[in-house]
Amino acid sequence: MHLAIQADDVRAAAERIRPLAQRTPVLRSSGFDAEAGARVFFKCENLQKGGAFKIRGAANLILSLPEMALAHGVVAYSSGNHAQATAIAARQVGTRATIVMPQDAPRLKMESTRSYGARIVTYNRFTEIREQIAGQIVKETGATLVPPFDHPMIMAGQGTAALELLEETGPLDALITPVGGGGLLSGCATIAKDMNPAMRVFGAEPEGANDTFLSFAAGERVTVAHPNTIADGLRAPRPGQLTFPVLKKLVERVVLVSDDEIRAAVKFLLLRLKILVEPSGAVPAAAVLFRKLPKEIRSVGVVLSGGNVDLEELAKY
Amino acid sequence: MHLAIQADDVRAAAERIRPLAQRTPVLRSSGFDAEAGARVFFKCENLQKGGAFKIRGAANLILSLPEMALAHGVVAYSSGNHAQATAIAARQVGTRATIVMPQDAPRLKMESTRSYGARIVTYNRFTEIREQIAGQIVKETGATLVPPFDHPMIMAGQGTAALELLEETGPLDALITPVGGGGLLSGCATIAKDMNPAMRVFGAEPEGANDTFLSFAAGERVTVAHPNTIADGLRAPRPGQLTFPVLKKLVERVVLVSDDEIRAAVKFLLLRLKILVEPSGAVPAAAVLFRKLPKEIRSVGVVLSGGNVDLEELAKY
Repeated sequence: MHLAIQADDVRAAAERIRPLAQRTPVLRSSGFDAEAGARVFFKCENLQKGGAFKIRGAANLILSLPEMALAHGVVAYSSGNHAQATAIAARQVGTRATIVMPQDAPRLKMESTRSYGARIVTYNRFTEIREQIAGQIVKETGATLVPPFDHPMIMAGQGTAALELLEETGPLDALITPVGGGGLLSGCATIAKDMNPAMRVFGAEPEGANDTFLSFAAGERVTVAHPNTIADGLRAPRPGQLTFPVLKKLVERVVLVSDDEIRAAVKFLLLRLKILVEPSGAVPAAAVLFRKLPKEIRSVGVVLSGGNVDLEELAKY
Repeated sequence: MHLAIQADDVRAAAERIRPLAQRTPVLRSSGFDAEAGARVFFKCENLQKGGAFKIRGAANLILSLPEMALAHGVVAYSSGNHAQATAIAARQVGTRATIVMPQDAPRLKMESTRSYGARIVTYNRFTEIREQIAGQIVKETGATLVPPFDHPMIMAGQGTAALELLEETGPLDALITPVGGGGLLSGCATIAKDMNPAMRVFGAEPEGANDTFLSFAAGERVTVAHPNTIADGLRAPRPGQLTFPVLKKLVERVVLVSDDEIRAAVKFLLLRLKILVEPSGAVPAAAVLFRKLPKEIRSVGVVLSGGNVDLEELAKY
């Protein structure tokens, strides 16, 4: 079956996004290694511009648009990190971003998205469908849609996180990233397997949003109607049409973690590594900390995908 | 007047400590830049091994000891980051560390120091003098004292933080670090002025522990009997005998920040840069955030010196 992206798409993305995305550091912690029973290399996308890896995909798509398209702006639907990333990337290339957000999205996220110069269009989560609203804007304005994950340019852009990580660490036994819609994992798996076919690639999902886990079991895309987890960035109800075939081919399996395990990982990363990681971003760290990977794995790359947490949320820990 | 260290001592230290200390990342934040009105480059020593820059000085001293001395171990007095750093460095070179700590030191810090294999000797802060206890141990065991700041090897080791920072950023208008006893600032000033004599070097102190500020005003070392600040790592009552002449010659001035400004900086660094910095480590960031530096300074390097905060302490913010 033809897959949506190849490793060279990720390499091309790395070149393309260089002016917009930061090369984030790779951190180690002997304390974490001891708990996990393996050498762990953290790719700190929580320290990325906009606080998450999402800028990689958004920048890759936006920077590949012809000028004529850019003149009509871009549009995205997201209440989270993808909204900010699209706004930041759009501003940096001098185009207009419109972000479709639920009326009841956290005020902080709205303000922060607006502070990057984006126009915000709100909708009622219970009576309206955001994809339709975004589609309407595309039709009316000629803007280009920047989808959150299911697009080759987004998938390839997100994969640059693994490319940078593995360039720095050299070959590892395994790589693990969070899975929401599968954009990050599909891009990372594509480049990792190309750099080293023996590398084992895993996804990490919250127990309460285990759509990709279930899809692996079923062999086809399964929908979880009401995902319920503190990892709010991973609540996509099903893997993407383009991402899933890539995951199915390249990813060994999806491991699950509980919300308590996620909280423990957030705390460990904060107090021991001194970095703030949001629950969604800490999901693969939780999987490694609680030894959910096969025990013969001695070295593992972990993508910490984001760091956007409300202060009030954090205080609850 | 003859100064205790020269720039080449810092360069030699950088070579020496390479196997023990990490090269920490330099982070940027457009949000912080906007608040500060300057381009700010953060040297993240909070992400250093042991959670603070202290490993640099301790490693530099310990790695320069002859084998005969190493055989008798090392001793340090500290309730904070210097204790952990000495323990870590000692373990890595295979020697014994004895750490003199007050009986009422935070249990977490004691445990963490012990977890690095150090022997802990406690004392009563109100009736005993830690320098005397350490001196007694030196006399009885032949161990080498690793002082917290007032030693050429310690000063030179701490200066490697600025060396790495400036190697990465190139020339900056200014550099600012916290000042406790002056070990970090004296080392950093020495190398910064050598790399670029036009660079302006500042120290940052809490208002409640302003002994170096007062010493600058008096032209000689002044003691603050009862330092009172949340920046517990900067409560040294006076600058060192060796550090002060270096500071006096190379540092333009010491700027003061309030505890509230320190708290605000800790919060900003956590929520916007996604990194955990302890109050002492955030003091120079507070100085830049609240625009205490001359306004013609357009680019500044900030050493974030440590990240060891108790969870309970943090929750109070």
